[in-house]
Amino acid sequence: MSGSTFGTHFKITTFGESHGAGVGVVVDGVTPQIEISEQEVQKELDRRKPGQSHITTSRRESDTIHFLSGVFEGKTTGTPLAMVLYNQDHDSSAYDHIKHAYRPGHADFTYQAKYGIRDYRGSGRASGRETAGRVAAGAIAKKILASRGIVITAYTLKAAGIECSLRDFDQIEKNPMRACDPHAAAQMVKRIEELKELGDSAGGVVECIITGLPKGIGEPVFDKFEAEIGKGILSVGAVRGIEFGSGFAAADMLGSTHNDPLTPQGFASNFAGGTLGGITTGEPFIFRAAVKPTASISSEQQSINEAGEAITIKTEGRHDPCICPRIVPVIEAMSAVVVVDLLKRQAAMWA
Amino acid sequence: MSGSTFGTHFKITTFGESHGAGVGVVVDGVTPQIEISEQEVQKELDRRKPGQSHITTSRRESDTIHFLSGVFEGKTTGTPLAMVLYNQDHDSSAYDHIKHAYRPGHADFTYQAKYGIRDYRGSGRASGRETAGRVAAGAIAKKILASRGIVITAYTLKAAGIECSLRDFDQIEKNPMRACDPHAAAQMVKRIEELKELGDSAGGVVECIITGLPKGIGEPVFDKFEAEIGKGILSVGAVRGIEFGSGFAAADMLGSTHNDPLTPQGFASNFAGGTLGGITTGEPFIFRAAVKPTASISSEQQSINEAGEAITIKTEGRHDPCICPRIVPVIEAMSAVVVVDLLKRQAAMWA
Amino acid sequence: MSGSTFGTHFKITTFGESHGAGVGVVVDGVTPQIEISEQEVQKELDRRKPGQSHITTSRRESDTIHFLSGVFEGKTTGTPLAMVLYNQDHDSSAYDHIKHAYRPGHADFTYQAKYGIRDYRGSGRASGRETAGRVAAGAIAKKILASRGIVITAYTLKAAGIECSLRDFDQIEKNPMRACDPHAAAQMVKRIEELKELGDSAGGVVECIITGLPKGIGEPVFDKFEAEIGKGILSVGAVRGIEFGSGFAAADMLGSTHNDPLTPQGFASNFAGGTLGGITTGEPFIFRAAVKPTASISSEQQSINEAGEAITIKTEGRHDPCICPRIVPVIEAMSAVVVVDLLKRQAAMWA
Amino acid sequence: MSGSTFGTHFKITTFGESHGAGVGVVVDGVTPQIEISEQEVQKELDRRKPGQSHITTSRRESDTIHFLSGVFEGKTTGTPLAMVLYNQDHDSSAYDHIKHAYRPGHADFTYQAKYGIRDYRGSGRASGRETAGRVAAGAIAKKILASRGIVITAYTLKAAGIECSLRDFDQIEKNPMRACDPHAAAQMVKRIEELKELGDSAGGVVECIITGLPKGIGEPVFDKFEAEIGKGILSVGAVRGIEFGSGFAAADMLGSTHNDPLTPQGFASNFAGGTLGGITTGEPFIFRAAVKPTASISSEQQSINEAGEAITIKTEGRHDPCICPRIVPVIEAMSAVVVVDLLKRQAAMWA
Repeated sequence: MSGSTFGTHFKITTFGESHGAGVGVVVDGVTPQIEISEQEVQKELDRRKPGQSHITTSRRESDTIHFLSGVFEGKTTGTPLAMVLYNQDHDSSAYDHIKHAYRPGHADFTYQAKYGIRDYRGSGRASGRETAGRVAAGAIAKKILASRGIVITAYTLKAAGIECSLRDFDQIEKNPMRACDPHAAAQMVKRIEELKELGDSAGGVVECIITGLPKGIGEPVFDKFEAEIGKGILSVGAVRGIEFGSGFAAADMLGSTHNDPLTPQGFASNFAGGTLGGITTGEPFIFRAAVKPTASISSEQQSINEAGEAITIKTEGRHDPCICPRIVPVIEAMSAVVVVDLLKRQAAMWA
Repeated sequence: MSGSTFGTHFKITTFGESHGAGVGVVVDGVTPQIEISEQEVQKELDRRKPGQSHITTSRRESDTIHFLSGVFEGKTTGTPLAMVLYNQDHDSSAYDHIKHAYRPGHADFTYQAKYGIRDYRGSGRASGRETAGRVAAGAIAKKILASRGIVITAYTLKAAGIECSLRDFDQIEKNPMRACDPHAAAQMVKRIEELKELGDSAGGVVECIITGLPKGIGEPVFDKFEAEIGKGILSVGAVRGIEFGSGFAAADMLGSTHNDPLTPQGFASNFAGGTLGGITTGEPFIFRAAVKPTASISSEQQSINEAGEAITIKTEGRHDPCICPRIVPVIEAMSAVVVVDLLKRQAAMWA
Repeated sequence: MSGSTFGTHFKITTFGESHGAGVGVVVDGVTPQIEISEQEVQKELDRRKPGQSHITTSRRESDTIHFLSGVFEGKTTGTPLAMVLYNQDHDSSAYDHIKHAYRPGHADFTYQAKYGIRDYRGSGRASGRETAGRVAAGAIAKKILASRGIVITAYTLKAAGIECSLRDFDQIEKNPMRACDPHAAAQMVKRIEELKELGDSAGGVVECIITGLPKGIGEPVFDKFEAEIGKGILSVGAVRGIEFGSGFAAADMLGSTHNDPLTPQGFASNFAGGTLGGITTGEPFIFRAAVKPTASISSEQQSINEAGEAITIKTEGRHDPCICPRIVPVIEAMSAVVVVDLLKRQAAMWA
Repeated sequence: MSGSTFGTHFKITTFGESHGAGVGVVVDGVTPQIEISEQEVQKELDRRKPGQSHITTSRRESDTIHFLSGVFEGKTTGTPLAMVLYNQDHDSSAYDHIKHAYRPGHADFTYQAKYGIRDYRGSGRASGRETAGRVAAGAIAKKILASRGIVITAYTLKAAGIECSLRDFDQIEKNPMRACDPHAAAQMVKRIEELKELGDSAGGVVECIITGLPKGIGEPVFDKFEAEIGKGILSVGAVRGIEFGSGFAAADMLGSTHNDPLTPQGFASNFAGGTLGGITTGEPFIFRAAVKPTASISSEQQSINEAGEAITIKTEGRHDPCICPRIVPVIEAMSAVVVVDLLKRQAAMWA
């Protein structure tokens, strides 16, 4: 089965390469009669687009969304909602040096191994630009969730070795890191600027909280809430791990501590992170994703070319020294897509 | 879409509750003409079954496998291979006290919330016994992989706060923890016995390495190798997180370190853990899963009943103070199922 | 993708060969809290089983259903409902003559071509016995539909060249042909007995009507109501065609006739057969399936063996000279499975 | 599960309405390194486009294809191939009279019932223009099949009550009916012109033959070759039935006739139409689809409006008095998509 479609009832299919005609998504299974505009989707895309600050890439990309179908007189019709962002930055000569070379940490080598052919320009299909389609689909999903009181909030918890010590959600969109702690954010920016100067890059951790979830969502035994969220988030390029609730810390905890007591007023703690047996408890759902340091760095690296010969390579030019702030909306989007899909699956159970 | 089927070409559907007639699995899409016997599957199931040592539950379960279809004269026919393990330990009176009560850390509360009905005996569908079907399917998958030189090895890396300091795979099946370090294993057993005495339980970390993988496996953009493994592993009951290669440690690394250099002799390091862009590099694939402390503990806990009234509850009797040694074969099984499926998807691409 | 699973939310997976341990089905996505008993399912299976009359095969088959999971205290729990019928008629020596030979009209040749191996005993997986699992699943689906006022009625409209001239549904279960016209039924029986004597077999047409359907069911553009019913019915062994409403006769009609006028009291005619644009109109849904003459005949036929050499072959013994009466419950079952699935998909749309 | 995606490995997702921004398709799972150009796809689309002759609609539609992704330097890359046809004929005032009215034989009534909202302009999503996406995807599939020697040929066998008496494939593209008999074609045109004058329309039968198929293709028990073809063809708007090989005539045949004898030189006849047990035999695969008379007619018809009040309605203007010639390429396209998908599934079996 081919791999560019995600979801069952709310199903998204993305397409596009960074230097082809455009990137986009078809969302099938959209709830009918939802009011939606290109502006609302654009708002989410603007959070993902390059050039938002000096610590994101200055690459020019057209992130202007166009609806091709599925919306009539400002409302969804229940038919496939196709959206496209046309590419403008078509100068591919900048990529001539990687036409026959593999950049370390990039998918050049594996796409060639898999398909025997690759669009080498700007990473082609493996480009982060592919996530624009996800964010656009996520904007539709978020609109559906909002009407049900479900809110998804992601933010940089840690970057370049610096961790937030408070979780102030009002701060997230006020700093270029999308961190939940302004003081930590300032330190992150400083450190990342230094790394950029050195031709290096940094990773981090993005945390996401989903509130307002009804009880009973998730489909055992394979499509548990965490398993579906997990797959969605782990399909995002730079993510190297995910943990739920207490996560890896649970490995060192005792059952007497980790078991969240139930009380007439609700759960007394939430080490489980909002699910039991893969089904939502009604408590906030919380997870963290590990984000690797950006593969594109301007310092010289050792690699090989298609002929298997040793070469050195530098990724000149425009790239994000830390992808965390731009991955935040992608993580929200994938989470929103998963949640809408699982809500629909729960509704189907009762028909 | 209902959630008890996993995979596309190699597709497994599990069924069964811990105290119904039995548990089992239907495996559809099995490669034809593979030699397989009930004994070979039994061998894997024996690694999962209870009562293997004093630190696993002494619960009596019949883990005897029966093939119902799909094998003819000792070979797979390519038609669905159904396998069942009939239940024997049918005394359900031991569960009367939870008929209307929710155990902390268990799925009692959420199954009731989701379905409005639940088989409360021995956790019903949410029982760990459900994984027997996965292990049986995994045994078939492993047999297919073995013929291609692909080997999957999981082991307890950490438990009850004690971490292995060496990775000696020969030791794994020689200690009751299935740990890769005999010295650490002895300490784990000692600590877990103490916790059991105290009516408590411990968690841990299971690591898994897959060797012999060809390059080019994994289906971008959503069904990346990690995303598929991630979903499979996160669908296993006690797992609270997964990380690949350097995992969460990548968050603190620099790009210049994390980018694995390519050389004419292969990759110079493997921080990526065997994939780039969600496609295998040919390097060993490595991941770790966080395992929570067993929810069933014999000390008294605070909870509620179905009426929402406060109660106290104890889970008397037979349970695993640490599930790591028994989750090891389940993690291997799910990994094997994912790998066979992705190999088949790659073959389909070229048709 | 492997082919023994059908449906999305109400998903059935069948397994089993005619001379292995048994045949069965796993039904996933069953609406919870539905009262169901083995007796109710058995009742449907008894309509499919051999030996019901002298014009059906006298082959002894155990068609006793066993629930393995998914039902607790007489109610569905929403977890997979596995059902099995163990095989008893294990004498496979009767099939020795076809071990290396291909019977005309049977799947012996194609199974060998596809899988390179086949369970030749009693047609193996290609046996009509496989449909027992479908009928069992259909019994669950029918129970769900009954609570919503949806009724599915199939019957032999034509067999051995004789066509019913009235549609009296009360007659269907009163004659061995399950025909809707007692006079025609008597003629069919007479003609089929003659053919049986001659070592030959007959085909026919089964018609099916679904009443009580709500408007709005069916999922354009690919999963239209007819397309889903069509796939389900065309997956039944002996079916060689399907038509909806006026069907092939529509080819010769004019638009002015075929267009069913809408009136304030409903549709003035129903040439469309209950759908427009692949979505139900609320009118009765009607289709007809062409059933080929049974491939097993006792007269001598020309064929080849596995070595490609010319042989002659006879299918001695017990078989149905016309499969129509026994295919009727299978067609009802597949229709019921499709309808429940599409109802669930419609419910999901609105979540 | 939403319904605008078809196939498993070769997976097509269509989108678009007749009077929105455009219609198109995303094809995922395309074999990499296939040479393909927009011109090749355009050629197939030109066979479907309106205005080819005086017996097809004179409606102006832009059927110019644009590749958005998945092709690099003239070759497929294995990533999603998105194609779009932008709409130009945007004058929707012609549809004001059906804004609140339901046309007989059209999906206006059912789309409103299902979604509670509909894009009424030019039938919206239910427009035949949706099939342009299918034809574009089919052009890719045909290219893949051609390299394997598989050829798909569809043609009008019957229209307006006139049936071809010879099958001369060289004639198909030489007459406006795409009929396989020039004499019959001339009669069809004459009769259809008369019906058009009368404000009426005609149906017909399209036959399709697939040659060059390998043995062993098709996935029992649900995804049999006929079941998959059947679903694909029955999802095309005007199709009201499908039959394979001898089809409905099989109902009247005897087993001794219908069973195709096997000989050392191959099958002696092909009543089965190219499959046994749902798997290809290697013989030509043949089926016929019943096509209803076009719903749009210019004579006055009885109907209702959204308020349920009786009205009369005429579909003025441009429409096809018989859709057969334009449905031919759609039937070829859907067949090609099914065949490529099943070839890929067979390849996956052996991995």
